[in-house]
Amino acid sequence: MAYDPNNVFAKIIRGEIPCKKVYEDDHVLAFHDIHPRRKIHVMIIPKGPHENASAFGENATDAEIVALWRAIPKIAAELGMTEKGYRLVTNCGEHGHQEVPHLHFHMLGGEPVGHLVSPL
Amino acid sequence: MAYDPNNVFAKIIRGEIPCKKVYEDDHVLAFHDIHPRRKIHVMIIPKGPHENASAFGENATDAEIVALWRAIPKIAAELGMTEKGYRLVTNCGEHGHQEVPHLHFHMLGGEPVGHLVSPL
Repeated sequence: MAYDPNNVFAKIIRGEIPCKKVYEDDHVLAFHDIHPRRKIHVMIIPKGPHENASAFGENATDAEIVALWRAIPKIAAELGMTEKGYRLVTNCGEHGHQEVPHLHFHMLGGEPVGHLVSPL
Repeated sequence: MAYDPNNVFAKIIRGEIPCKKVYEDDHVLAFHDIHPRRKIHVMIIPKGPHENASAFGENATDAEIVALWRAIPKIAAELGMTEKGYRLVTNCGEHGHQEVPHLHFHMLGGEPVGHLVSPL
């Protein structure tokens, strides 16, 4: 599936929609979710046009992949979650209930986040 | 916290405990969870001694990080999840309810996986 440049995260990256920024570097942007589902709920996204985790694994450059993972502990530290931890989740496609077609990791914490999966 | 080489995933990597392998390369191992919580529930782990997502982001080599992400679409394909998708989850520390102190991603799919987070 072709990447849709009009998705909401692409607009945030381009500055067309504001966000409450937590972290930014050349390849990565992190910002607070507007509908937080835990005390801390941040979106972590690559700036490149990657639809989901599989597309990222296939098409991202090594530099993009490394930057995303180097950013994780920095973002956790910025949010005061180094000691107590967090959950990272990314949803891919229909079965994952992916809502925005731009790779995003939910970083959830600030309190115990609960079970791995909800009842079906 | 120092990495504990006696955790169950370290033992699986060393071949001391068997696993139902899905994928393996120099840096990555994927195998079926013994207590699957969805139709497909696979563990994806780096072979290196990294306790969690933050430790991985701080200490893994670029090659380890890239290998992990290049493996994701291959593992999804191996499991027939390319079209319908999946959820990837990693829990870090107490608030994330991390159980095994070796970085692992839960790859969940084969059916709609449900809500992002369970009720608290």
